[in-house]
Parts: sequence; C-alpha cells; structure tokens
Amino acid sequence: MTTDPKIPYKIYLEESEMPRAWYNVRADMKNKPAPLLNPATGKPMTAEELEAVFCRELVQQELDDTTPYIPIPEEIRDFYKMYRPSPLVRAYCLEEKLGTPAKIYYKFEGNNTSGSHKLNSAIAQAYYAKNQGLRGVTTETGAGQWGTALSMACAYLGLDCQVYMVKCSYEQKPFRREVMRTYGAKVTPSPSDTTAVGRKILAEHPGTSGSLGCAISEAVEAATSQEGYRYVLGSVLNQVLLHQSVIGLETRAALDKYGIQPDIIIGCAGGGSNLGGLISPFAGEMLRGERNYRIIAVEPASCPSLTRGRFVYDFCDTGHVCPLAKMYTLGSEFIPSANHAGGLRYHGMSSVVSQLYHDGYLEAVSVEQTKVFEAAEYFARVEGILPAPESSHAIRVAIDEAVKCRETGEAKTIVFGLTGTGYFDMVAYQRYNDGKMVDRIPTDEELEASLATLPKIGG
Amino acid sequence: MTTDPKIPYKIYLEESEMPRAWYNVRADMKNKPAPLLNPATGKPMTAEELEAVFCRELVQQELDDTTPYIPIPEEIRDFYKMYRPSPLVRAYCLEEKLGTPAKIYYKFEGNNTSGSHKLNSAIAQAYYAKNQGLRGVTTETGAGQWGTALSMACAYLGLDCQVYMVKCSYEQKPFRREVMRTYGAKVTPSPSDTTAVGRKILAEHPGTSGSLGCAISEAVEAATSQEGYRYVLGSVLNQVLLHQSVIGLETRAALDKYGIQPDIIIGCAGGGSNLGGLISPFAGEMLRGERNYRIIAVEPASCPSLTRGRFVYDFCDTGHVCPLAKMYTLGSEFIPSANHAGGLRYHGMSSVVSQLYHDGYLEAVSVEQTKVFEAAEYFARVEGILPAPESSHAIRVAIDEAVKCRETGEAKTIVFGLTGTGYFDMVAYQRYNDGKMVDRIPTDEELEASLATLPKIGG
Repeated sequence: MTTDPKIPYKIYLEESEMPRAWYNVRADMKNKPAPLLNPATGKPMTAEELEAVFCRELVQQELDDTTPYIPIPEEIRDFYKMYRPSPLVRAYCLEEKLGTPAKIYYKFEGNNTSGSHKLNSAIAQAYYAKNQGLRGVTTETGAGQWGTALSMACAYLGLDCQVYMVKCSYEQKPFRREVMRTYGAKVTPSPSDTTAVGRKILAEHPGTSGSLGCAISEAVEAATSQEGYRYVLGSVLNQVLLHQSVIGLETRAALDKYGIQPDIIIGCAGGGSNLGGLISPFAGEMLRGERNYRIIAVEPASCPSLTRGRFVYDFCDTGHVCPLAKMYTLGSEFIPSANHAGGLRYHGMSSVVSQLYHDGYLEAVSVEQTKVFEAAEYFARVEGILPAPESSHAIRVAIDEAVKCRETGEAKTIVFGLTGTGYFDMVAYQRYNDGKMVDRIPTDEELEASLATLPKIGG
Repeated sequence: MTTDPKIPYKIYLEESEMPRAWYNVRADMKNKPAPLLNPATGKPMTAEELEAVFCRELVQQELDDTTPYIPIPEEIRDFYKMYRPSPLVRAYCLEEKLGTPAKIYYKFEGNNTSGSHKLNSAIAQAYYAKNQGLRGVTTETGAGQWGTALSMACAYLGLDCQVYMVKCSYEQKPFRREVMRTYGAKVTPSPSDTTAVGRKILAEHPGTSGSLGCAISEAVEAATSQEGYRYVLGSVLNQVLLHQSVIGLETRAALDKYGIQPDIIIGCAGGGSNLGGLISPFAGEMLRGERNYRIIAVEPASCPSLTRGRFVYDFCDTGHVCPLAKMYTLGSEFIPSANHAGGLRYHGMSSVVSQLYHDGYLEAVSVEQTKVFEAAEYFARVEGILPAPESSHAIRVAIDEAVKCRETGEAKTIVFGLTGTGYFDMVAYQRYNDGKMVDRIPTDEELEASLATLPKIGG
C-alpha cells in the first residue's frame, strides 16, 4: 500500500479542537434564503406562529440569518464527545484500487447507534426542548434513521419521545422500530387512530400503508394537542443545517491540521441537511470571496429536485399542514417510484442549499440507483465500511471524479460526506445482489403533473 | 457532567502508537495450555497433521508457546488502520448515572462493519491463507458475526470465501447473510447437499434446521476436498487469541498514555477469543509477577462452561471431526436452551483461558440473560451505544462492580471489553422489550448427562 507518511488513515481531532459554535452560513449569504410563509395568509411566519409548533430557541435559530457563529451549549458538546469527533478518513485503499492520482477523503458520520449524522441535530433539538421545560417531542420517521437519533437524544435527556413511523416501514423495518423502543420511544404506525387526521385518513383509505406526509400531519397534531410537547424535524429546516455545520467545521479543522486544501467537495442531497452541514464552512469561504471549490450535490435520478425541479414556494409536507418554503421542488405530491431503494425521497430541498445552488455556489448531478449500489458494494469491499444507500450517492460521484483524475493525471483532493451505514438497508442490498434492482426515472410528463400542484402563493 | 479535564471521553492512539507485534501470553505461562490431541491416536497433533486443515503459518502460531511477541505483517497493520485503533472510552455518563466513585472504561470493538472484534483475527487468517498461495478459505458461522468479518477480510485480499451458515440463522438472519454476500462470500445454509456429511445429515434428519457442529463438519470437508482451500475458525484456538491480543495491547497503551492503572478487568466469555485478547497483556504482567489485577470472565448462566464445566479433554465440535482440546467444557453435546438469546453458546472455552482460570489468574461469574438485557438497555440509553448481547454480559458485571464501589466508597478503575454492536440482534431485544424473555439455566442432571459424553481419551 502506498501511503503518505504524513497523513494517517484516519484524522481524529482532539476534544479541545472540536467546534464550540455552529456556523450559520446564512450570515454570509448576500441573497438570504426566502422566509417561510404562512399558507393561510401568504405572509412570512412570525416567531410567535412558529413557537406554537417548534421550541422557542429553535425558532430563533430558524429565523436568524445574521449571526455567523452560534455557541453550542456545553451539554450538547458533552453529548457530541460521546460519538464525535467523527473521523476524516483518507481512502488510501480506494485510491490504490482505482489507480488514481486523486487524494480522496471522507468524513464518516456512521459511527454511532443512529447510524448517521442525524444525531447531530437530534441532540440539539431535544436539548432545547428540555431547556424550555417541555415534557416531550413528537416527530415522524420514514426509514427510521431520524426517529432512532431522536430516541437516543431523548433517552439521554429523559425526555418523552413519540415517533409516528410510516406504517409500511413500521412493518417492514421491525429492527429500526425495536432500536427506537429500546431507547424508550413510543413508536406508532401511521396512519393511526391516535390523531384526528390519522382517523380521517384511515376512514377514507382503510388499507393504506401510510406516507411521510401523513406521518408529519399526525406528529404535528400530536405536538399541538398535548400540553408540554413540540414537534421536531430532522432535515430541510435552517436550524437543522445549522446543527449539521459541525460536520463541515470538523472537516475543515481536520484538513487544516494537516495543511490539506480540497478541490472538490461532494455530498448526497435529500432534504439537504448533511450536504448543507458539510459544505457550510466551505461555501462560507466562497461567499466571502476567500477561496473557490467545486461543490457537488448528488441526488437520485428518481427524485431529482435540484436537477429537474422548480425554484418556487411549495408545501413542505404532503398534508399541507406546515409552512411554505421557497426551494427547488418537484411538487409536494411527488412520490418517487416504489422501486426506489436509495433513500433521499424528499420532494424538495433545504432553502439554504436551494439558494446557494440558484446562486451558482454548487453544482448538482443525479445518479441512478443501480450505479449507486454498484459504487456502494465496490466501496464496502475496498474500504471495509458498508455504506447507507443515501451516502452511496456521494461515493458514486467521488469515484467518478477520481477516475477522471486518473484519465487526466490530475492529483485533485476530493472530500466527500459518508453520512451513514447500511446495516438496516439489507433488503435493498439483497435486491441489488440478486440482480433485481432496476432504475425508474420520472418522465417529463410525470414531473409536470406533480408540479401542477404547486401552491398559487408566494410565487 | 463532572469530567476529569485530563482524561478525554475517548482515548485514541496515534497510528504510530499501534501495536507492531501480537503478544503471545503462552510464552509467559508456567503451566502451558495442553496440546491439541488427535482423536484417533490420542497423541498431540503434529504440525503436518494440522496443516491438512489449517494454513501453514497459522499452525506455527497455534503451536508456538515460547515466543512472546510475534510481528504483525505490514499488510495486516495497514488493514488494522482502516478500523483501528479502537477507542478506549471513559464512561463518564454511566458513572454519573450510577452515582459511583468508580472510574469506568470500555474498549469498544464495534466500529467496523463486522460489528465486532472478530475482524482482528479474520484479516490475519485470510492474510496467511493468501500468502500461502491458497485460492480460498471455508468456515462456519452461527449468528454471522464471524462469517461477516471473514467475508470482509477475503474481499479486501481477493480471496474466495465459503461460509456454511447454520440453516436457522440463514433463514432468520437474512440481513447478516446479505452483508456477507455483499462482500462476495458464497453463503450456504447448513446442512447442505454440497458435502457428503451434509447429505448424510439431510438424509437422516430431513427437516433439520442445522447446528454449529454440523456447519463445522461441512466447512472442514469443503476445505479438505477442494484444491487450494483451508479451514479457518473465529474463536477458541490459540492463534485467534494471539491475534486478538491487539485489543489488550491497545488498551494497555491507551491506559499508559494517561497514566491510568486498572483494578478490575472484565470481559464476556464464549469461546474466549475476546476475553483472551483483552486480558493477555494484563495476565502477562501477573504471570511475570509484576502486577496484580482482578480479572473477571462473564459467561451466560445458560452456558456456564467455566463456572460449572469440567477441565478435561473434549471434542471442539459436535461432529467430532476436529482435534480434542483440554478446556473447561460442558460436553460437546451440550446445547444451550433454545430461548437463550444472549450469544456465547459454545460448549467449551479456549485452552489458554481455561488454563489461566484453572491456575487462579482470573475469576468467572455467570449471569442470567434478562439481567444482561437490562444492563444492555441501560447502557444504550446512557452511553448511546446499542451493545451486542454478548458484550452486555461484561456490561452487567461492570455495572455491578461500579455499584459495589458506590456502596463502599472505593474509586476503583474498571476496564471492560465492549466487543460489538447489537444491530443484528433486534429480535432478541424485541423479546426483552415485550417482556417475553425468560431465563433457563441447565439443571445439574442436564449437565451431568452432557458431560457423560466426554471422550475417554487424554483424561
């Protein structure tokens, strides 16, 4: 193995080098992300309106687009120390296998029981809920990563955690459900008879296996109808990107520690929380005119919000109970093909990431899932880590870029986000291993049909 | 949180501080572990006899009880760098929650895709097979941890990997099976029609769901009947304990780095590989008369080889195709109760660990599985890591010892081995969460019946 004796396989920061504040990229954006709108009035949501649903401190973070650094409370930093700093790994084996002169690094967020970066925001949101004297929080979960992360954070702080889990996942992913239960969460298959909206949906569609939109509606109702509860969300929102900036800040610090300057930064993009967190400090340097990077957002071809969506105001949820956000969207009715196993199924994209993309600070590419799983398996065998399908979108493009370097002879430095592990995604891997995975890309007509449902407001 | 500013949450060694040689505790043992015997002749197995089944270099390591340090080849050290050093974690949160003056540390081996320490020996065994010019290796796996580790090692080295997986696990743990397939292993449910012994068993017991003993027999037959193949094993053997000494060496180095001296060292014990690896350097200090520790082996009450077994020669496998080993054993026919979900199901114990126990260098305790899962859940909620049931045996006793310290006011330093994660054990957790887990301890009559099957040889 050819290695650089100056650069270890894994760069770990010391505890004393860990970030003490989150970085709020909005403070450096000339074009601020557009505000959330009240769907009833078409006017920006006020803090008061938001506080009916979200915790007070988190509403402040949601609305704050001027403060560049927001201190991380000590209790959250203590929790971070249990599973952070995450390693920045030099992919020596992958480089050798590809025969590329490129230097490849990945920031690995999978070394915690939630299996992903979601925990970074879950602990922050649970902390502020606890701090406000609340009894508990409610949320929805699809595959279960976010629900698991929130369950862990709530167990640690002694906060009640109620998770509405899309019914088909509840039944098909019993292991995720059990992890949440082991952490003391109350997991309810959605739609359920515990909420008015759930009962209504069950009456109208008795056999439904649920959807994320329905689970959001139930979780919001559960939060607003119980004394001392608020609703929390694992992606898309500005506050979530703020918390996830810890990924980018650690990455920047680890690179600086060894004098490494990246050329290309790659992240997968669903709702945008991991990508936004990883790229924040780098985008900040670009926004301040200090440096330039190629930043690449990778999304699934079956859910291509950045590459084929429209940059407009849209509903954040299928049930239309949440505020409107300006973002690249495929329309809130859009549902990726049922055969799509690669995650990143959200119809829209974080307003921050959308604005940065609109303003030319990042590129976007879409990839098909068979190519994604091909890269995932290749990576697993070479680097030893079984990646989550979501993360594998970034792996695919990192490999493609490294292969281009082999062809051009350029020794570019590539950094990508490896957001999590695939231990609970083996059904998808099995489909790939059995040669039964297919790609299904929405037609222009299908996209036009779902975009026809965009609200007539805020446009 | 009250923390010691001098001791971080996680102690990571630098790459330059990682062990360059394994420690062979047998070299320091006055009473050497008894040699393996040929069941046909009753005489010690020769290197030549062993080489028909095992790789040449591994046979040397198996037989070498005089060389204290055996260099780790560079290629293995490179692989180790992909997932090692593993962190030695200070369990600050657990200490606070327990209100104990004890200082608790755990060596966490779960941060790799195999989910356990098994990878430490898998890469070594695969390396020596590759080095000998072999085409591949065969093995058996029960729950699938060892099979996964071996698949990863073989994928990395480009070696063929054939895994015989106990049929009930193959069917009930499809995720583990898929991880192995993703790493390119050929996984066959055992008993199968691919071997003579498998066909014989299938003819005699058409509906059987298999056993580890049967899978071993098939794997050995597959190795000896194919050109360029050898059989490898994930625990019990001296060579495996040698490779696993990397756990103890790293632990010793991490403690030394911060000037910490442990009082109690705790490990779970099934075949003995993790326990033996963790305690080797510490036992060595005791054997050389340099220092004293309390070393505690923790085993399940439903499979109590050390605490209720007999120290005699016995078959290593149910099928009686392997050599005889002198060890604490419950008899090779012993099978733990079907409701036992906590792992560590092997009827015997590594000869090295057995001899050390016999000579008074370690204590042994057995614990019931409901108490083990209680500790597992407590630990998960407080320390954030969802532990494997096996590892949770050590957690149980570490908590018990820390509680004793609370009562006596002693600030003892406790180190325990956290061998792996429980992501693939959620069926067992579910049983516990649903209140359906029960304990089932073998009666004296049951143990006497299985001990009556001991061989009449070597006694």
